[in-house]
Amino acid sequence: MAVSTIALRIGADLRALRERKPLVHQITNYVVMNETANATLALGALPVMAHAPEEVEEMVALASALVLNIGTLSPHWVDAMLQAGKAANAAGIPVVLDPVGAGATRYRTDTAKRILDEVDVAVLRGNAGEVATLVGVDAEVRGVESVGGGDDPAELARAAGGSLGLVASVTGPTDHVSDGERDVAVANGDPLLASITGTGCMATALTGCFLAVAADRPLEAAAEALVAFGIAGEDAARDAKGPGTFHAGLYDALAALDPATIDERARVT
Amino acid sequence: MAVSTIALRIGADLRALRERKPLVHQITNYVVMNETANATLALGALPVMAHAPEEVEEMVALASALVLNIGTLSPHWVDAMLQAGKAANAAGIPVVLDPVGAGATRYRTDTAKRILDEVDVAVLRGNAGEVATLVGVDAEVRGVESVGGGDDPAELARAAGGSLGLVASVTGPTDHVSDGERDVAVANGDPLLASITGTGCMATALTGCFLAVAADRPLEAAAEALVAFGIAGEDAARDAKGPGTFHAGLYDALAALDPATIDERARVT
Amino acid sequence: MAVSTIALRIGADLRALRERKPLVHQITNYVVMNETANATLALGALPVMAHAPEEVEEMVALASALVLNIGTLSPHWVDAMLQAGKAANAAGIPVVLDPVGAGATRYRTDTAKRILDEVDVAVLRGNAGEVATLVGVDAEVRGVESVGGGDDPAELARAAGGSLGLVASVTGPTDHVSDGERDVAVANGDPLLASITGTGCMATALTGCFLAVAADRPLEAAAEALVAFGIAGEDAARDAKGPGTFHAGLYDALAALDPATIDERARVT
Repeated sequence: MAVSTIALRIGADLRALRERKPLVHQITNYVVMNETANATLALGALPVMAHAPEEVEEMVALASALVLNIGTLSPHWVDAMLQAGKAANAAGIPVVLDPVGAGATRYRTDTAKRILDEVDVAVLRGNAGEVATLVGVDAEVRGVESVGGGDDPAELARAAGGSLGLVASVTGPTDHVSDGERDVAVANGDPLLASITGTGCMATALTGCFLAVAADRPLEAAAEALVAFGIAGEDAARDAKGPGTFHAGLYDALAALDPATIDERARVT
Repeated sequence: MAVSTIALRIGADLRALRERKPLVHQITNYVVMNETANATLALGALPVMAHAPEEVEEMVALASALVLNIGTLSPHWVDAMLQAGKAANAAGIPVVLDPVGAGATRYRTDTAKRILDEVDVAVLRGNAGEVATLVGVDAEVRGVESVGGGDDPAELARAAGGSLGLVASVTGPTDHVSDGERDVAVANGDPLLASITGTGCMATALTGCFLAVAADRPLEAAAEALVAFGIAGEDAARDAKGPGTFHAGLYDALAALDPATIDERARVT
Repeated sequence: MAVSTIALRIGADLRALRERKPLVHQITNYVVMNETANATLALGALPVMAHAPEEVEEMVALASALVLNIGTLSPHWVDAMLQAGKAANAAGIPVVLDPVGAGATRYRTDTAKRILDEVDVAVLRGNAGEVATLVGVDAEVRGVESVGGGDDPAELARAAGGSLGLVASVTGPTDHVSDGERDVAVANGDPLLASITGTGCMATALTGCFLAVAADRPLEAAAEALVAFGIAGEDAARDAKGPGTFHAGLYDALAALDPATIDERARVT
């Protein structure tokens, strides 16, 4: 069986996103809600945060993608994620999951597995430790930081994509995205991205944004989001004096991403 | 019956606010809590966030205004809003309501209507779609963004002010504030205000701040808040390189608002 | 009994912190979660926010310090704080408490007292009004701002340290830290720190960071945290144009703190 090639169309998808302004429904953690909403807006989509069982099904039906993030999970919020995820599946709306801290506590690991079990997730976006945990590879997760998760993140992404039947998007110094057969490595980014909280969660939210305009190409959407976010990180790092000015500059850089040049700037293999 | 004229005293009210530092109790959404607290502080008032049924009545009794915002509502929070709203009414403390996302889901629409029904709201601050929904005009609300809400926002504000018996503060490219009889249009502002999340919520919080020193003039307080916020937006836009630096600059600009010149800079009709 | 002298080792402890990157578990309020996480990261430690009863005991066991903050308390969150606090005590992990708004409402006062009663708190970090409330001195707390709390904050810190059997860290224009016998006054800082929300909460989080590497010297850790935060405030103030740019600059300054010079810059008596 021939493995089809991967053709990223970052500029074209970014252009489409800014024209259509898709609504991206996010059930995420308290720490980063403002940050992922602002990253979504800066890229060009519309965020909405809603978690009440009374409205999540109705809200997700208005959206073009659903982002689930267990960063500050509790039972009511997990219920809302499952409810919204099933409604998204029923309506054909793509779902991204960020298993924040899976591997750190049993509750996080079990919850991430439960969501993967009950919801058809298009893209799983996590660090190496979190993703390794979810495919049964020994991993070390310290709080919500990955300290280790196997020696080979490319292999990990491939294994996760294959065994979980989704696109695994494993971020780190180099990001690896795989559906189990096809692989993309993304080398865009800057070390300052690790200096502020929530950049992983922002990457997940932006994955939702690209999925919203490329639901039929989840591997490409996941890789394009990481390229776009990585380039914004590179641009923001240029004038940053530290994590605070980098953080403010990151939104400027996301808003300034140029569809005409973004494909040339992609460092993808 | 002659309609009395409207005399804004923005500088004088801003001066009073900075002298008295009124406490503004906010029961608001998770996305913008930090942002509305910082906007309140930057203007010169003191924010306090408290939502537990065990304390909202005691807390609101210490405050000079109450801000209710349903941006990430759930039943417990709605109960707290109703409880605090009724306590505010009993104590004569003015209440502002931001019906975030009314029109997007039935739960948001019903909750906003329920608060309007059970609490005496002084100012309703929303976008055209949200306010149109609440007065029964056809509207399109996409997540929490207004996409449409009648053709004439001035008429909408007038209709809402009249039929709901409050001051309607409908924000957009031009803002329209009306009590059903008297109208103010505020043209201050900058398009960058729409590029970050929570600026509507900040406008609501600042409305609470002005109400705290001008409770007997809710129409004027609502308009003054929008002038002050709009001018801060204009000032912040001057040096901004995008939404991130604009966001940081917005607090600088709010803190730098000059009572001596603010009335001249008002673009009000 | 001779009172032992106090020897701060700020640079050495900061160096240790950046090498070990201790995990600091924070159960804190909605308003400042992003801010305290970013301050923790900028200093050089790793933050984790987790509040579900299903995981707080497991999470705190991974951590080197626990930060409890009642800024937006509700019964479920208070339960989680008590549960995590007891688990921290059992594991010998130091606990910092920030009694945000104690004195403003009975619920906040009672909750802070209950935590002090049921959990062995190493450092109590609050403003004068909050700490005065907890030792039975008349105080005025306005929302979450201290308006007054006795005339002599040094005496207040000493009284609180002695009567509560912990290190009291009372912040204000000059900070006073005491275990009831030994006292430190810290004069570092800048008035702009009072212009943004959550700087008290950040001071508490940074106290947790220093405790994580100096659990056996809680008085020193508390004072060192305030010196470090105060110096960062001084540095951030230098280029700030107002509270917004100061806020961004504060994280830059925390990340740029130089262990080689920080001890000389301490204004401690």
